[in-house]
Amino acid sequence: MSPIHLAIVGVGKIARDQHLPSIAKNPDFKLVAAASRHGTVDGIDNFKSIDEMLEKVPAIQAVSLCMPPQNRYEAAHKALSAGKHVFMEKPPGATLSEVADLEALADAKGLSLFASWHSRYAPAVEAAKAFLDSTIIRSMKVVWKEDVRHWHPNQEWIWQAGGLGVFDPGINALSIVTHILPRPVFITKATLEFPENRDAPIAAGITFTDAHGLDLTAEFDWRQTGKQSWDIVAATDDGEMVLSEGGAKLSIDGVLKHEEPEQEYPMLYKRFAEIVQAGKSDVDLAPLRHVADAFMLGRRKFVDAFYD
Amino acid sequence: MSPIHLAIVGVGKIARDQHLPSIAKNPDFKLVAAASRHGTVDGIDNFKSIDEMLEKVPAIQAVSLCMPPQNRYEAAHKALSAGKHVFMEKPPGATLSEVADLEALADAKGLSLFASWHSRYAPAVEAAKAFLDSTIIRSMKVVWKEDVRHWHPNQEWIWQAGGLGVFDPGINALSIVTHILPRPVFITKATLEFPENRDAPIAAGITFTDAHGLDLTAEFDWRQTGKQSWDIVAATDDGEMVLSEGGAKLSIDGVLKHEEPEQEYPMLYKRFAEIVQAGKSDVDLAPLRHVADAFMLGRRKFVDAFYD
Repeated sequence: MSPIHLAIVGVGKIARDQHLPSIAKNPDFKLVAAASRHGTVDGIDNFKSIDEMLEKVPAIQAVSLCMPPQNRYEAAHKALSAGKHVFMEKPPGATLSEVADLEALADAKGLSLFASWHSRYAPAVEAAKAFLDSTIIRSMKVVWKEDVRHWHPNQEWIWQAGGLGVFDPGINALSIVTHILPRPVFITKATLEFPENRDAPIAAGITFTDAHGLDLTAEFDWRQTGKQSWDIVAATDDGEMVLSEGGAKLSIDGVLKHEEPEQEYPMLYKRFAEIVQAGKSDVDLAPLRHVADAFMLGRRKFVDAFYD
Repeated sequence: MSPIHLAIVGVGKIARDQHLPSIAKNPDFKLVAAASRHGTVDGIDNFKSIDEMLEKVPAIQAVSLCMPPQNRYEAAHKALSAGKHVFMEKPPGATLSEVADLEALADAKGLSLFASWHSRYAPAVEAAKAFLDSTIIRSMKVVWKEDVRHWHPNQEWIWQAGGLGVFDPGINALSIVTHILPRPVFITKATLEFPENRDAPIAAGITFTDAHGLDLTAEFDWRQTGKQSWDIVAATDDGEMVLSEGGAKLSIDGVLKHEEPEQEYPMLYKRFAEIVQAGKSDVDLAPLRHVADAFMLGRRKFVDAFYD
């Protein structure tokens, strides 16, 4: 099969660090154009806007959106309307409703929309899912604590309303949890901690359950200095499962079961090629739906102001 | 066709004012049992819990949930698990995820789940939809302003986190708007006003758009004394449409086009009987999804404390 002619929109840090190397290594894709206000990619056609790019390069078959979520709807809508398959980073939009609209448009046009969750492609996630499917889960605890000053220095947009705050990393945890659990869960209680000078939460504590009464809690915190935690711990009838380092490492009762180098973005592009070739979409809104549910149901609590 | 054997859960004000009279007048239903902690219904079997009722009255085919939203998931899950069709009041749950779970359960069991939006059955709503389908909409403004002290005196649960606050009436407006508009909309901006002593908003200002750039705004306010407003006004190529009194009255350019007595609950039961007989569900989460989106995307603003 000849490679899918791909264009990227947004040539910034994530495009250079992750998208471009993954595309270069994947024979299913041929990068033919890029649109970006500031950046350019050597050796291909570059444009200042997606409109100009779509008009000038009709050979584009698929578009990968590598820009912040705020303007993603418009770009995705333009690309789908022009008959292109679309790959979107997480989170797939600022609202659930706009993503539902894009999904309906892709369906109507027979195009593939990939609303990706990169953490689901962390190395040990499938092994964790297989283990949980083979046992009885008694409880689960998600601890996702990192230092926002280190990971998002001076990024104003993450603190604005709609910027999701600590749910920006937290949604990665939710994308794993919703993938590895055997049944859907839903939130019964949440507390969101907002710095008194910010419009997005810096921490959240969430209680979930499922139809069988599962005891699942999640703690997200952006004030963690020193050791960073991206762990999912489950008490099961076959021992304590620890999925740590953001899904990279799986241990059962302290015995390491699975660890290999991270390959998330190459896996995402592999998946995107698969769904394009199969003529289907991959849009699972569950992680974003839980975030929206947490904001709707959660109690707001005000904590110390945050300054970068 | 013999009538559907129906049971109700929750015998309070809304059951007595709306459900019981509507059921009594509808030959498609025969009320056979009720479960309620405090209330009873004359002439049928009464139980203290849904569990006891489902166990003792196997003839029940469908269950109507007339209680507050907080415990609805559990009751709906029990009824569906026992093989009963379910009718739920608006809002269908405290989270989107729990309703998605119920919908999947109803599907899996081949049962009908009706997540109802009573305002969609207001007398002039269908006429408004037909008018909007026949013209071009230039802009739309929703004004839903009422006096919470009058409509919800001393109801603590509406002010708790998850109680939705002003979105409790506002979701009625959203249920109409999402039904009468020709295309799906999504929120681009929202401001939620929280009384400084409460965990739910007393007012909200929301901006929506759609794929064609529609200009749609909504103002919800619970501090309105005097005249109450439940109006949807649209500027169209065929004049100004005013759908007022919560959907009861339709005027175009000041000329009254449609007005008749309110029959919302009788219509809801008619619809429930239809979907049970057709073997399908009616679960449109769009109104609740917009509320969740507003909480997720919206800026929080603090206003004067509210005391009943």
